[in-house]
Amino acid sequence: MTKGKLARIDLSNGKITKERVDGNLYSKFLGGKGYAAYLLFKELPWQVDPLSPQNKLIFMTGPLTGTRAPTGNRFCVCTKSPLTGAWLDTHCGGFWGPELRFAGYEGLIIEGKARNPVYVYIEDNEIRVLDADWLWGADSFSTERLLKHKHRGRREPKTAEIGPAGERKQLISCIVSEGRAAGRGGAGAVMGSKKLKAIAVKGTRFRPQDLVQNLDAFNKAVRRCYKKIGDEKKTSPRLRGSLPIYGTANIIDLVNEAGGWPTRNFQAGSFEKSSSINGPAFADSLWVPRNSPGTKPCYNCPILCAHVAIVNDGIWVGTVDEGPEYETIWAFGPQCGIDDREAIARADYLCDYYGLDTISLGNTIGFLMECYERGLITQDDTDGLELRFGNAPAMIKVVEMAGSGSGKIGSLAAEGVKRAAQTVGKGSETFAIHVKGLEVPAYDPRSAQGMGLCYAISDRGACHLHAWTAGEELLGWNGRDPRLTEDKAEWVKDMVEGGNAVWDSSGLCKFSGFALSDKDVRRLIVAATGLNYETVEDLKKVGERINNLTRAFNLREGLSSSADTLPRRLLEEPMPTGPCQGDVARLTELLPDYYRLCGWNQNGMPTAAKLHELGLDFVLTKLRAKKKKRRKRAKRKRVGK
Amino acid sequence: MTKGKLARIDLSNGKITKERVDGNLYSKFLGGKGYAAYLLFKELPWQVDPLSPQNKLIFMTGPLTGTRAPTGNRFCVCTKSPLTGAWLDTHCGGFWGPELRFAGYEGLIIEGKARNPVYVYIEDNEIRVLDADWLWGADSFSTERLLKHKHRGRREPKTAEIGPAGERKQLISCIVSEGRAAGRGGAGAVMGSKKLKAIAVKGTRFRPQDLVQNLDAFNKAVRRCYKKIGDEKKTSPRLRGSLPIYGTANIIDLVNEAGGWPTRNFQAGSFEKSSSINGPAFADSLWVPRNSPGTKPCYNCPILCAHVAIVNDGIWVGTVDEGPEYETIWAFGPQCGIDDREAIARADYLCDYYGLDTISLGNTIGFLMECYERGLITQDDTDGLELRFGNAPAMIKVVEMAGSGSGKIGSLAAEGVKRAAQTVGKGSETFAIHVKGLEVPAYDPRSAQGMGLCYAISDRGACHLHAWTAGEELLGWNGRDPRLTEDKAEWVKDMVEGGNAVWDSSGLCKFSGFALSDKDVRRLIVAATGLNYETVEDLKKVGERINNLTRAFNLREGLSSSADTLPRRLLEEPMPTGPCQGDVARLTELLPDYYRLCGWNQNGMPTAAKLHELGLDFVLTKLRAKKKKRRKRAKRKRVGK
Repeated sequence: MTKGKLARIDLSNGKITKERVDGNLYSKFLGGKGYAAYLLFKELPWQVDPLSPQNKLIFMTGPLTGTRAPTGNRFCVCTKSPLTGAWLDTHCGGFWGPELRFAGYEGLIIEGKARNPVYVYIEDNEIRVLDADWLWGADSFSTERLLKHKHRGRREPKTAEIGPAGERKQLISCIVSEGRAAGRGGAGAVMGSKKLKAIAVKGTRFRPQDLVQNLDAFNKAVRRCYKKIGDEKKTSPRLRGSLPIYGTANIIDLVNEAGGWPTRNFQAGSFEKSSSINGPAFADSLWVPRNSPGTKPCYNCPILCAHVAIVNDGIWVGTVDEGPEYETIWAFGPQCGIDDREAIARADYLCDYYGLDTISLGNTIGFLMECYERGLITQDDTDGLELRFGNAPAMIKVVEMAGSGSGKIGSLAAEGVKRAAQTVGKGSETFAIHVKGLEVPAYDPRSAQGMGLCYAISDRGACHLHAWTAGEELLGWNGRDPRLTEDKAEWVKDMVEGGNAVWDSSGLCKFSGFALSDKDVRRLIVAATGLNYETVEDLKKVGERINNLTRAFNLREGLSSSADTLPRRLLEEPMPTGPCQGDVARLTELLPDYYRLCGWNQNGMPTAAKLHELGLDFVLTKLRAKKKKRRKRAKRKRVGK
Repeated sequence: MTKGKLARIDLSNGKITKERVDGNLYSKFLGGKGYAAYLLFKELPWQVDPLSPQNKLIFMTGPLTGTRAPTGNRFCVCTKSPLTGAWLDTHCGGFWGPELRFAGYEGLIIEGKARNPVYVYIEDNEIRVLDADWLWGADSFSTERLLKHKHRGRREPKTAEIGPAGERKQLISCIVSEGRAAGRGGAGAVMGSKKLKAIAVKGTRFRPQDLVQNLDAFNKAVRRCYKKIGDEKKTSPRLRGSLPIYGTANIIDLVNEAGGWPTRNFQAGSFEKSSSINGPAFADSLWVPRNSPGTKPCYNCPILCAHVAIVNDGIWVGTVDEGPEYETIWAFGPQCGIDDREAIARADYLCDYYGLDTISLGNTIGFLMECYERGLITQDDTDGLELRFGNAPAMIKVVEMAGSGSGKIGSLAAEGVKRAAQTVGKGSETFAIHVKGLEVPAYDPRSAQGMGLCYAISDRGACHLHAWTAGEELLGWNGRDPRLTEDKAEWVKDMVEGGNAVWDSSGLCKFSGFALSDKDVRRLIVAATGLNYETVEDLKKVGERINNLTRAFNLREGLSSSADTLPRRLLEEPMPTGPCQGDVARLTELLPDYYRLCGWNQNGMPTAAKLHELGLDFVLTKLRAKKKKRRKRAKRKRVGK
């Protein structure tokens, strides 16, 4: 099945245990998000404080991570999010995940809390918890540099680390790895709360071919994938054309024209200066050319969407960073009314330097700009900054302050938009654009009804990846009408569940889906694991199981169906311009359908029948036990009164 | 003699030639500065524009670089300085020099100018000039990171590079290598003028033992050195005690108490807040502890003076950098009236990021602060900054602006203090503290007469390393009276000449001199090279030869004895406080003696007899030819009139 182990590292007492992967669980949940969801549901005390030692932080790879499957390089970090209080899975490409598997591990379960800062160093069988007191405070780039130097040798270690923002447990802090990030939901804060600065891994036990069960079948499946990726007819034009050249920014013009590019904190759906910051604009000015030695694609990636920006002029000269990606360009661009490419690249760099999520921070700064323009906050609150839309130097200043946790405005921004709105008050909550506390990313659901449902029902909060309907709704692929709601609940459900198993638990990058079908991925997974998924439906069942499990996780953590909503602005303020002018996000037309299709009751609770069908009876038992407990407590209270 | 070659790389046409090291020249000049001095004197057109393609940039190692000799890790960069118009040798430790020798090269002679940005990649026999258009603009840390990634493999390449300041040919820009710098005199600008971004080297042809001729004798000499370094009686307490713990900052208190720590642009000789920024203060707060994995000592160094600072709190949190060293602490500390450790570490980091010399920039900012306080410049000139002594955020802002070349004040600061004074005018030249255009470092010669002579006569301008009399004059070692001038000319001459051969041309770090004698170094050099230096005097003769050659170089470049001077303030304004209160630098008592002892005439010109004695007749021929030419030209002019 799989040779790799799970390593359980208790930072409170330094105890390290290696556990075998449970074949039955692996078959039911796969690796990645799925297996982690099972572990967290089973092991995490209910309603635990996400920043307490009782929370756990699981780094998990999938069965295709590190193999020769195209884009098999992802790992995910799962935990209870301090930003949302809900389930969190956040994913990252690069090199760290493969290295972990080469060392012999499917995943790491980090528990407890170290007394003093530590980092974990893994070299094959050897796992050590080492002092990182000396390293505390270091930016993420330097952390990587110092650890790579310290553990240099024939093979370079790969690192995943937090920056100063994570150390301070700032709620939108991320985990950085090799110039990329597991960005969303504050996983960096959880890592910081455990005083875990970094995890460096060097793996030589397994080669890519050692990670698969049926090598012949696997190689055959891989060859078929590569053939497809190279085949013009079978590959989306995104993959062969604009994605490698313009990276994730390749879709900017289309999204903007479709009126789905949120502008100035979602006050509009298109940005008048988008041509300054679209893919061609970055490619012509800041990005290292595709065929130059500067690009640094992820492990085993034939897509090559990765770009490196270098600012070679102006006040931010010197800045070098992977990206900026589509979402980051949006967050520090239109969301803040800014069309300054260099400033956007600088903000991206600073976020990596300090370890902050670009989407969350950019979204929050846009919100604060609106607050400032509306007079809800003044220069007293902004440390003297003229925090208006379009003011790039002020935006950069706020990013710096959020990174260093300095000033009123920096402290405000670093905790995300929900807390910022709570602090500002004065009705600002209506235009604080988040779901469950997670900041909404770069597709306006008023111009893409499917995205609205995706945001509302994603287990981790407003996520654009759980069901990326934007491709068909905004980019014209297959041309689904963005304004319609019909059939979209089913479509979203299908994508969420498929995605859970096919991508988020397998170790593949979602972008391979531009060429590969679910069938291809099933073939890869079956050959790699030896598990018996006979059809794509079998695999989707795994995805459905995972989705019900994270749903149950959120329910037990106290999130009810009322959390499956969208910010007031998106529900009530009609899109002022563009093709979807006049529209709001019509969530009420979608949500009941979605619940019903999921086999959930009208309160969004998985029914006993559904849970039983999915083999999740243990969930039912737990949830019922909880219900009983609650009732008892309520009764006691009533009696007390 | 030596197996390594010299590689001549003409960037104008991409031609690469490998030349054998001339045994006769090697014997006369050794490697490092000495051999480079010969090459530059012979090959450089007279009075060439330092930033033109005609200037050459020589990276040179010494015979002990890369060997097992303790501290055998230095390389130097020699060229005609764009900052001074004079000779420049600037030195750097770390790992790059050894790697170059492992690859089979004693040195690189960089000529011409590339049409587009390039970098040089060396892997053993293979030398390639590669496109660096994509890399242009990158900060030095990222440049290293990207090149290390690009050329990764079994062995990590070592890099030397410029930052954006060097690219812009800013006159005080340096060459950064593995967290260290060949800092002084604007070598980075010369590299930038050639559009050479970096040199990355991977060397596996030679092992350390392959670099020496008589291995048995060498190993014996090395063992003797290590014995001495470990021997309490024979080693300076600096070496065993405070230097490894407090780094170069170990001497701050002593220099400050001796009234030799220039404060607020040399308006005083001691800083009232020095206890906030001395060795113990840095060790207790910012520096990674000595015995932690964070320190990164140079190749083969038993001294371990290197420190890494991490700012783990406050607005500059995240900052990580090698250092700050004694000179840098001074430059951004007392020289600017600042006692903020974090700000000093940040300025140090920024200088490395942009590739700027810390001494020159700090000195210049202190000067500009005095100009501002005296009303010679206003907020119109400082981009609105309140540029007063002690204003740390303003200081940091100027460093950022100098690094990015932005704003009036940034552009002013990045060209060094001589140009700044020329721009400011209004009599500011009297307190622009430089010699020959090179900014004076952190010993006030009014409190150490020997240092005054050292500054005045050093071939590259105000250098504290050519004859470091400060140890005995200010730190109380052997206790030479800092106020006396007697015998100091001879002492300085001895140190300059000895240093040229023993340290600056051998590849050893000067700090090994705290334990090793000239005799030890002679033994190492003889065993390593097989050359026949029978006594220390033979070696000193090499040093004298080099010193006369660089002197001749400066003379032919138009520097006369009038350049052997000190800034007006140091000659005329008495030290206001401290043990040397009332003193000025009494250069006139020293300079004639120095000339005489050198065998130079009263105008500081080497006599024919001296040049002949040193085997430098070719110099004489060249200088005479030049004199004739000049006379002819003068005659023509007179006739023309």
